[in-house]
Amino acid sequence: MKVGVVGANGYSGIELIRLLLNHPQIKLEMLISHSTKGEQLQNIYSHLSGIVEKTLEDFDADELAARTEVVFFATPAGISKDLLPECLKRGLICIDLSGDFRLKDPQEYADWYHKDPADAALLNDAVYGLSEINRRQIQGANFISNPGCYPTATLLGLAPVLKNKIIDLSSIIVDGKSGISGSGKKAIIGNLFSEVNENVKAYKLGQHQHTPEIEQTIEEISGEKHAITFTTNLIPMTRGLMCTIYATLEQGFSTRELLDHYEKFYENSPFVRIRPLGTWPSTKEVLGSNFCDIGLNVDGRTRRLTIVSVIDNVVKGAAGQAVQNLNIIKEWDEQTGLAFTPIYP
Amino acid sequence: MKVGVVGANGYSGIELIRLLLNHPQIKLEMLISHSTKGEQLQNIYSHLSGIVEKTLEDFDADELAARTEVVFFATPAGISKDLLPECLKRGLICIDLSGDFRLKDPQEYADWYHKDPADAALLNDAVYGLSEINRRQIQGANFISNPGCYPTATLLGLAPVLKNKIIDLSSIIVDGKSGISGSGKKAIIGNLFSEVNENVKAYKLGQHQHTPEIEQTIEEISGEKHAITFTTNLIPMTRGLMCTIYATLEQGFSTRELLDHYEKFYENSPFVRIRPLGTWPSTKEVLGSNFCDIGLNVDGRTRRLTIVSVIDNVVKGAAGQAVQNLNIIKEWDEQTGLAFTPIYP
Amino acid sequence: MKVGVVGANGYSGIELIRLLLNHPQIKLEMLISHSTKGEQLQNIYSHLSGIVEKTLEDFDADELAARTEVVFFATPAGISKDLLPECLKRGLICIDLSGDFRLKDPQEYADWYHKDPADAALLNDAVYGLSEINRRQIQGANFISNPGCYPTATLLGLAPVLKNKIIDLSSIIVDGKSGISGSGKKAIIGNLFSEVNENVKAYKLGQHQHTPEIEQTIEEISGEKHAITFTTNLIPMTRGLMCTIYATLEQGFSTRELLDHYEKFYENSPFVRIRPLGTWPSTKEVLGSNFCDIGLNVDGRTRRLTIVSVIDNVVKGAAGQAVQNLNIIKEWDEQTGLAFTPIYP
Amino acid sequence: MKVGVVGANGYSGIELIRLLLNHPQIKLEMLISHSTKGEQLQNIYSHLSGIVEKTLEDFDADELAARTEVVFFATPAGISKDLLPECLKRGLICIDLSGDFRLKDPQEYADWYHKDPADAALLNDAVYGLSEINRRQIQGANFISNPGCYPTATLLGLAPVLKNKIIDLSSIIVDGKSGISGSGKKAIIGNLFSEVNENVKAYKLGQHQHTPEIEQTIEEISGEKHAITFTTNLIPMTRGLMCTIYATLEQGFSTRELLDHYEKFYENSPFVRIRPLGTWPSTKEVLGSNFCDIGLNVDGRTRRLTIVSVIDNVVKGAAGQAVQNLNIIKEWDEQTGLAFTPIYP
Repeated sequence: MKVGVVGANGYSGIELIRLLLNHPQIKLEMLISHSTKGEQLQNIYSHLSGIVEKTLEDFDADELAARTEVVFFATPAGISKDLLPECLKRGLICIDLSGDFRLKDPQEYADWYHKDPADAALLNDAVYGLSEINRRQIQGANFISNPGCYPTATLLGLAPVLKNKIIDLSSIIVDGKSGISGSGKKAIIGNLFSEVNENVKAYKLGQHQHTPEIEQTIEEISGEKHAITFTTNLIPMTRGLMCTIYATLEQGFSTRELLDHYEKFYENSPFVRIRPLGTWPSTKEVLGSNFCDIGLNVDGRTRRLTIVSVIDNVVKGAAGQAVQNLNIIKEWDEQTGLAFTPIYP
Repeated sequence: MKVGVVGANGYSGIELIRLLLNHPQIKLEMLISHSTKGEQLQNIYSHLSGIVEKTLEDFDADELAARTEVVFFATPAGISKDLLPECLKRGLICIDLSGDFRLKDPQEYADWYHKDPADAALLNDAVYGLSEINRRQIQGANFISNPGCYPTATLLGLAPVLKNKIIDLSSIIVDGKSGISGSGKKAIIGNLFSEVNENVKAYKLGQHQHTPEIEQTIEEISGEKHAITFTTNLIPMTRGLMCTIYATLEQGFSTRELLDHYEKFYENSPFVRIRPLGTWPSTKEVLGSNFCDIGLNVDGRTRRLTIVSVIDNVVKGAAGQAVQNLNIIKEWDEQTGLAFTPIYP
Repeated sequence: MKVGVVGANGYSGIELIRLLLNHPQIKLEMLISHSTKGEQLQNIYSHLSGIVEKTLEDFDADELAARTEVVFFATPAGISKDLLPECLKRGLICIDLSGDFRLKDPQEYADWYHKDPADAALLNDAVYGLSEINRRQIQGANFISNPGCYPTATLLGLAPVLKNKIIDLSSIIVDGKSGISGSGKKAIIGNLFSEVNENVKAYKLGQHQHTPEIEQTIEEISGEKHAITFTTNLIPMTRGLMCTIYATLEQGFSTRELLDHYEKFYENSPFVRIRPLGTWPSTKEVLGSNFCDIGLNVDGRTRRLTIVSVIDNVVKGAAGQAVQNLNIIKEWDEQTGLAFTPIYP
Repeated sequence: MKVGVVGANGYSGIELIRLLLNHPQIKLEMLISHSTKGEQLQNIYSHLSGIVEKTLEDFDADELAARTEVVFFATPAGISKDLLPECLKRGLICIDLSGDFRLKDPQEYADWYHKDPADAALLNDAVYGLSEINRRQIQGANFISNPGCYPTATLLGLAPVLKNKIIDLSSIIVDGKSGISGSGKKAIIGNLFSEVNENVKAYKLGQHQHTPEIEQTIEEISGEKHAITFTTNLIPMTRGLMCTIYATLEQGFSTRELLDHYEKFYENSPFVRIRPLGTWPSTKEVLGSNFCDIGLNVDGRTRRLTIVSVIDNVVKGAAGQAVQNLNIIKEWDEQTGLAFTPIYP
């Protein structure tokens, strides 16, 4: 199956390329980058020397329709909103890795992204591609809005306790810690090595655009609308993301009981791994892979549950989940092309 | 004034040495390390070549009493409990950087440190050296128990809101992020570069020995006893510690109002700096210095306060605060020998 | 084909496991670790949770012979010397990743490794597994001594100019820079994050045990015996190794001419990639892959050639080349199970 | 003494500020940054909160002359060439940290910097501020061209062997390894954390602008003109620079003999420290300080000398040496304001 990647020159784009090269059903056909069209991708990214010999092309929906069946959009916010509808119209399967189609309410997009929202009807058509939770809706879909990195880790960590009055839904606090690749390949002072190295930095408190995405999905799963407290921090590593989630238990569950519940909840989800009692995951344990690893702790003294959820932000938090969603759409085995063992050390 | 450092071969020990070398009133007289006695310190730490030409000595309370007036203990938990009383008896001023004398209740020490506690009477004598909060008790004291790194950042962040029903004291959650030097110079697998680099790791959930220390001081300040939720994470940097503190507001304060309150609370505390509205500190901004920088955010949607508090764990979180306490004891200017500009980048 | 890995608990061991899991012809049958026998590997390495469910076993040559056809030794120096002959005797294909069988002269081993050498007859039987150079000898062999990490990068960089009087063989200087994983999973002070981070350290000048290995192979290829100058440096990264090689040209070649020569020399070697004129490789461009990337510069002012050669020390410098050698032995496609795209960023 | 800093917003500029704040004879009077004039420096650099409360000003030679006695130029190449002469004319002491006045031959500047050179007469007036070597010329001078970071480490490492036929001057090869702060605060892709972290990158082979600076000084010291081979590498750290220098010995000196010679050569240079036999320096051992630490190894097998020389590139390689030069000009103690103990770990 031939595919195109729009935004092939960014970090999510080249990670998609790495994953798709490993996928037995996929042929990379078109690599699109408006800003660097006409250049050989391997001249920009030497790690692809001799592996990808394609030239970057400009976006052209007719070309895409003629040459591919599936298009991934790995573009910054505000781009796919305009380009993706052109591809949908031409019958292509579209998977958007940006935030443009994640929020159902256009006003929320405007409020949190400070950009013009996509067309409301299209927002309704997009299936939110949180693979483990929305498998049924994803199957056979032709338009997927891929979740953000923080929402993926947070929602997979929370999903098993969002129903049945296990936790107080108004008590949720998420403390996120992310590697710098999450902010993309942007030449700004804040992303320089000298600024990021040997440093941890809190940013966008109360303003992060992933907040309404998390709240919307909590509402979809639980049926209740609640605001969360969400803090994000940049830590000095390239890849990897951890969300530490705090919530008050409504009932007196033990860590052991909740671990059993999580194991059962994810028993058919090969990419979610639950850590044994008394241990918690670290991001390096999922590096380069599509896993989301989760550990739990119930503090009897405060009756609070702490959930630690880790992913590789560029894989499960972006390109990997996009490929997983394509696997689900096409009813291929969910792990097709994604069975990477994490790289350690 | 001549001083001795017990545990001169550890990371807190050599940081004490760096700071004391810069102190106009101090002369380093005895450097003590049981495990490496007889060696030249500069042969172990080449960065001290030509700067410190002293030989490490074994602990000997009589020698210390004969040659020094002040002794710093930069030893692992379980050591100063036995050695420090010998120095106190001989009339020396003792400043303990370990956890041995921080908890007033011996049983709590036994429960959280899994070691035998110090003598209960001595525990009562120790003044808890959180400089900005306990200045009056520290003045003229001869026995200081220096706070832990996480408690320092947490308590300085929380102190201004612990009274007057500003926050719900039962709602406090602390998410700590620390550089690796905090775990000392221990040759264990978990501290290896290959394990720590490009990694963030949650550890000791619900079990960290700094938990009762924070709770004890919250009680001392507020008059109320509450359990907190406290999570610690190792991040890939050498120095620096951030505590992100969450609490529910009892009253509808704005961020602006609370910032003013913090500014006023710390107006005579030169080492505490409050960040302007809409900005939050990063650890690199205090690197190598004795500052504690604090930023705030009130989320109107959840009525929760988020406090971001950063220190250099080896300075304000250990050696720097110890020197600050000596300055207070002797009624020297609090910044004597500690006016380091943070190193940036 | 069933294989065993001796030393499965070390960094080369777990990297072998990552690569072998991806190999279509291989089944991991026995994982051997004397020190942690009886433990589940995934309990030591959480990144393997749900991927490798085997228990570590003790070394037993009869068991290995009964259950496997190939044994990899990923053991520290001084171990395989005794264990490997037992496996050879029982008809197993043996691939040794340690230094025990690399030097043909037992005295050189004793001089540089400060350990007792292997049996001289066995040393003669071992085929030096520098895949691109010794393919013919490797085919059908049953006993491979896998090259060291520095020798692999150095010798692949030098091989095209070792004959035909291109360079003065007595002028070779190698400046090596390596990530810390090269020193293995050893809990020593020098490998701690706090010591390695934000640091570059020269070590073992004139004493590194890879020196005679490089010189021996230079002699084998060129027919001439020369001493080299070899300096090694630890730099603050986990994986990756660069050798910068200096040599005086005997003839007035341009960079362009030498690049053409290198391209031709390696035209049938899919894992060696030559950088275009005016560009040089960086280690991240081969991360997680079996590539060796090489760039050149001729400085007309000094008539010196500089060769920059990079590998992932744990892959092409250890586990990857071992698997490549097995592919060559069995006459499978050399890239079988090794077609990893480097991970970037 | 009141001083001005031109380029106060760059990394060398803020390091100058850190050092000058610690200098008992200095008062920071004017901080100049064309691009950010009118802003408070502490609003750009939060680590200076409450420490530097000055507003950045635009360059104005008359103002500088009215308010200061000394001006430091911490500007990118091509700026001080035009601004500094205006200050010299007005009688100010000028210390230039850029490359604009280092090369005596304007054509060499044009060839290596690809910019227009400064006025040839001015080039002749500038005293090259390699403090330990040119002390006499620096005393009482009013115009100092401060050396580059690589030349400082290289020339201090080489100076003791440049005379008396100790080494073959035509055999010098320098392999430099630098932290990223050396490339300044430039928002370019190549300086991003995601590109630099877990990476080592060779750059500008045969083209680095510090090459002619090193060669010019070798000629000044030795009286002979020779080309060197000079390779530069970026390694994943913020601060620190190591030059590994290779040269063939003309005479059969032992490491021991050369170490004695170096000790004697630098006996009146408090910032140069020579490592004992069999040990070599690492960059962390000079972090934050003005030291240059040097280790040696003679390889009897190749009769080559290897010199390992490390500095903090922002201190001894830039701002620190500039302050040291001011100390020498004014005949203050050379260590005034510079007696920083390196920060470890």
